[in-house]
Amino acid sequence: MNLDFFNTRRTVRSFSPEVPSRDDICAMIEAAAHAPNTGNMQNVAAIVTSDSEILRQLSPLHFGQPCVCNAPYVITFCADFNRFEQWCSLRDANPGFDNLQSLLAAIVDASIFAQQFCTIAEMNGLGGVFLGTTLYNAGQIARVLELPDKVIPVITLAIGVPASDASQGPTERLPLRSVLHFDKYQPFDNNDIESLYATLEAAESSHKFIAENNKKTLAQVFTDVRYPRDSAEAFSETLKAFIKNYL
Amino acid sequence: MNLDFFNTRRTVRSFSPEVPSRDDICAMIEAAAHAPNTGNMQNVAAIVTSDSEILRQLSPLHFGQPCVCNAPYVITFCADFNRFEQWCSLRDANPGFDNLQSLLAAIVDASIFAQQFCTIAEMNGLGGVFLGTTLYNAGQIARVLELPDKVIPVITLAIGVPASDASQGPTERLPLRSVLHFDKYQPFDNNDIESLYATLEAAESSHKFIAENNKKTLAQVFTDVRYPRDSAEAFSETLKAFIKNYL
Repeated sequence: MNLDFFNTRRTVRSFSPEVPSRDDICAMIEAAAHAPNTGNMQNVAAIVTSDSEILRQLSPLHFGQPCVCNAPYVITFCADFNRFEQWCSLRDANPGFDNLQSLLAAIVDASIFAQQFCTIAEMNGLGGVFLGTTLYNAGQIARVLELPDKVIPVITLAIGVPASDASQGPTERLPLRSVLHFDKYQPFDNNDIESLYATLEAAESSHKFIAENNKKTLAQVFTDVRYPRDSAEAFSETLKAFIKNYL
Repeated sequence: MNLDFFNTRRTVRSFSPEVPSRDDICAMIEAAAHAPNTGNMQNVAAIVTSDSEILRQLSPLHFGQPCVCNAPYVITFCADFNRFEQWCSLRDANPGFDNLQSLLAAIVDASIFAQQFCTIAEMNGLGGVFLGTTLYNAGQIARVLELPDKVIPVITLAIGVPASDASQGPTERLPLRSVLHFDKYQPFDNNDIESLYATLEAAESSHKFIAENNKKTLAQVFTDVRYPRDSAEAFSETLKAFIKNYL
């Protein structure tokens, strides 16, 4: 077993001026579309954006993350019931996708499609970063990308050739025990938690985050600064309005 | 660019008696955990089940799909806020994950983790099938796997060494145009839809599905038999009750 590629992959946020060809992107999207999906309905879509005016409009919706304007391609992976339902309308079939199960299945499919594309791109020398901000501003992103009704943007990948100074080595992960359970969930006691987070908390970068944000613990950086409740709740309400037909 | 592996991968539903070692599964899960995730919080968990009694209990919750009992490993990928929140409770941090945005981010992360594992397993000679039934019976699956509060099963992968007769060639996909749009969504007119679905509808297997299910069109097989509205709506209500803290 050779797992080195997967164990050492890394996120890339700065890109070389070299632009991968559109044909290469097409070929990689086509390969990624062979990833598993629910019932082989392929209720997904990838919007590959390189037009600088559209990227300029997308940028604030991703909170100005520089990679949106600096990457040669920004790909918005979507749940797409529009195409399938149009087919149904031509074939005397009455689809029932406007419910939570169907939406979540398509969100899982869009995520799988996105990740397969990301892996393929990375294996072919590209690098990128996922923007989890997509669902925060889904309605506005849908307007910019002219998504029809029944197409929901899920996750975005900024992708390109890594800049020469982009190399940073892989991001550290928690010990395997944190995410792996055999047979049934094996609960953690407080000693387990101390042990699982010890290396992360001891890292120099963690001390830096705590100091920069004037917090007492690394956990507080996540809960108070990076993922505060009020922001998540406000964006949840906006999202609920956008996907109300599925809830 | 060599995309053959991705273009020719296939779903495997029957398995050889050969059992991959637990160490190999661990190494592959560890590699998959290097896939991207939201904020590097790793709010995900993989429950690797091989105990035959637990698999017997899971089987009806996946509607008796034979692969649940025939695969050497059934892996349930979950959104997991439990571990992170336990850490927060030890670090004077007040997490705000009980909302839709946080849930969907963790569902995306669990899907990405699952797909990265699937790719790694396939590249190392294993094969498997995703069970989208996981969210249909999420609450009951959580009870069988003893998932604590704040752990939500998202998608399940039955995985093993492919049976010698498992080879069927890759599943056909729709033409690339179906899932790929440049810059903005490019709407389909009815002629486009006819063209995109022509090959699928002409396939022998499609004619067989229509005849077996006594339907007039392939689309009706999806809407009336495989993904009927009443079933999706009923399972959506059950799911809403299970994840009510996030809605």
